[in-house]
Amino acid sequence: MLLKNSDLWFSEYYMDDDVKLSLKIDEVLHVEQTPFQKLEMFRNETFGVFMVLDGYTQVTEKDEFVYHDMICHPAMCVNPNIKNVLIIGGGDGGTAREVARYKSIEKIDMVEIDEAVVRACEKFMPSTSSVYSSEPRLNLMFDDGLKFVKEAPAGAYDLILVDSTDPAGPGEGLFTVGFYQDCFRVLSDNGILINQHEGAFYDGDIEEMKKAHAKIKKTFPIAKVFGFNTPTYASGYWYFGFASKALDPMKDMKPEAWNALGLETRYYNTDLHKGAFSLPNYVKEILASVE
Amino acid sequence: MLLKNSDLWFSEYYMDDDVKLSLKIDEVLHVEQTPFQKLEMFRNETFGVFMVLDGYTQVTEKDEFVYHDMICHPAMCVNPNIKNVLIIGGGDGGTAREVARYKSIEKIDMVEIDEAVVRACEKFMPSTSSVYSSEPRLNLMFDDGLKFVKEAPAGAYDLILVDSTDPAGPGEGLFTVGFYQDCFRVLSDNGILINQHEGAFYDGDIEEMKKAHAKIKKTFPIAKVFGFNTPTYASGYWYFGFASKALDPMKDMKPEAWNALGLETRYYNTDLHKGAFSLPNYVKEILASVE
Repeated sequence: MLLKNSDLWFSEYYMDDDVKLSLKIDEVLHVEQTPFQKLEMFRNETFGVFMVLDGYTQVTEKDEFVYHDMICHPAMCVNPNIKNVLIIGGGDGGTAREVARYKSIEKIDMVEIDEAVVRACEKFMPSTSSVYSSEPRLNLMFDDGLKFVKEAPAGAYDLILVDSTDPAGPGEGLFTVGFYQDCFRVLSDNGILINQHEGAFYDGDIEEMKKAHAKIKKTFPIAKVFGFNTPTYASGYWYFGFASKALDPMKDMKPEAWNALGLETRYYNTDLHKGAFSLPNYVKEILASVE
Repeated sequence: MLLKNSDLWFSEYYMDDDVKLSLKIDEVLHVEQTPFQKLEMFRNETFGVFMVLDGYTQVTEKDEFVYHDMICHPAMCVNPNIKNVLIIGGGDGGTAREVARYKSIEKIDMVEIDEAVVRACEKFMPSTSSVYSSEPRLNLMFDDGLKFVKEAPAGAYDLILVDSTDPAGPGEGLFTVGFYQDCFRVLSDNGILINQHEGAFYDGDIEEMKKAHAKIKKTFPIAKVFGFNTPTYASGYWYFGFASKALDPMKDMKPEAWNALGLETRYYNTDLHKGAFSLPNYVKEILASVE
């Protein structure tokens, strides 16, 4: 219920203290200090329900299709033979939902460290979380992704999707050389790792992008970066890394095979795939500075 | 000077009242009600000096390179023989600055309706406005762009760049069929029109994108749209229209010729050119709905 004598705003700061994006809150749905992070779920008229972890907006009903298209479909277009998928994080369910659209995929293991995230999304964000009750190939585990990958057998997965928070808080270990090396070992010969690659515009994000790229570049022979327009992430544009032992995201993409699947997507298409990997010069320079 | 007991924020609303981007103000440089609009210039630590017209952020020192690269270089890559350029609006000078980098261009006519914008940018934003004192090919006129184009001779220009405000206030007439028809007449056979095409994410912007596209599509045989990541515009992603009598922005682009010029750019490159025209599905659907 809206009162007339006050209003409530959620603001995320993009620089230390002088740039922020704010969403007006119609309803506070859930506030919880989990064992891992502060979890908040709000409703905003424009963005619908959205989830915030430790003060960072993770997912909104309105723009989640962009992020979830881009974490999943580019890799599937490069290697249509992916059978075994590991999702690390991704507690809202949107990544699993997109992966599950491929009939050819046999197993989806998902390791989310924070069960509270899943439970809150089950309650308040069915558009992403309904996959939990509908998908028999999905094996959801509440565990530490870092430990899980360390203990997983070599070559067990064709695709690893790191759908984590930023490199602070519970996601921190997922931005280390040790983790990337474990991913390399656990991936099959044509395996692909998609990881968080942060932003390229604000100073703090640039530093994280450099660190992530330097570490992945040391670990994988092919390590590229691609971007996408998410209005609720800093600067409106965010990046994933595409790392592989053998497949190049541009040269080895199979647009005809992907288009033959007939999947309807609101953001991704195979022309945009190439566009997403065609980076602005200033982003290429950031990456080249650590290569 | 920063005081400790207060702070000052500029906020631009992206939806009617429930989403806003805010920049903390270090210094109010200039506030003026011109005959055409409210003009404000502020300084923010992250973005540097920025200009606001009628409450909408137009240009910031930090991210202006994106907008000015993209309003100019894609067209120049498609037609390297452009000699005569008309800029409508563009009072900060950034568009003229980029155009002036091409030695092959013979004449740059610029028609800005509001002299106060030019004077304020000369004073506070030399990175864009220094072109006014340094460029002999630039002919700056303070006049109504709508009227100027109506009265200009047929075939007078190879390139028209509409660097205007949004379709409210003084820029309104630059979003009409009559204006687009005048541009068509004034352009040479291989002429190109680059115009404001607004955003594709928030409802109000989508409506303006539809209106602009429907009108241009009726006027020009080739009418495409391309996007770019500007952190200070709504959703972080904004669009220009590319309209032409004869040249297609993808099929007719000349990457080798453009790259041979050796221009250094921070955002644009010829791969990104193709990427910018490779639109997300939801944007393609918005455009198709009015074609």
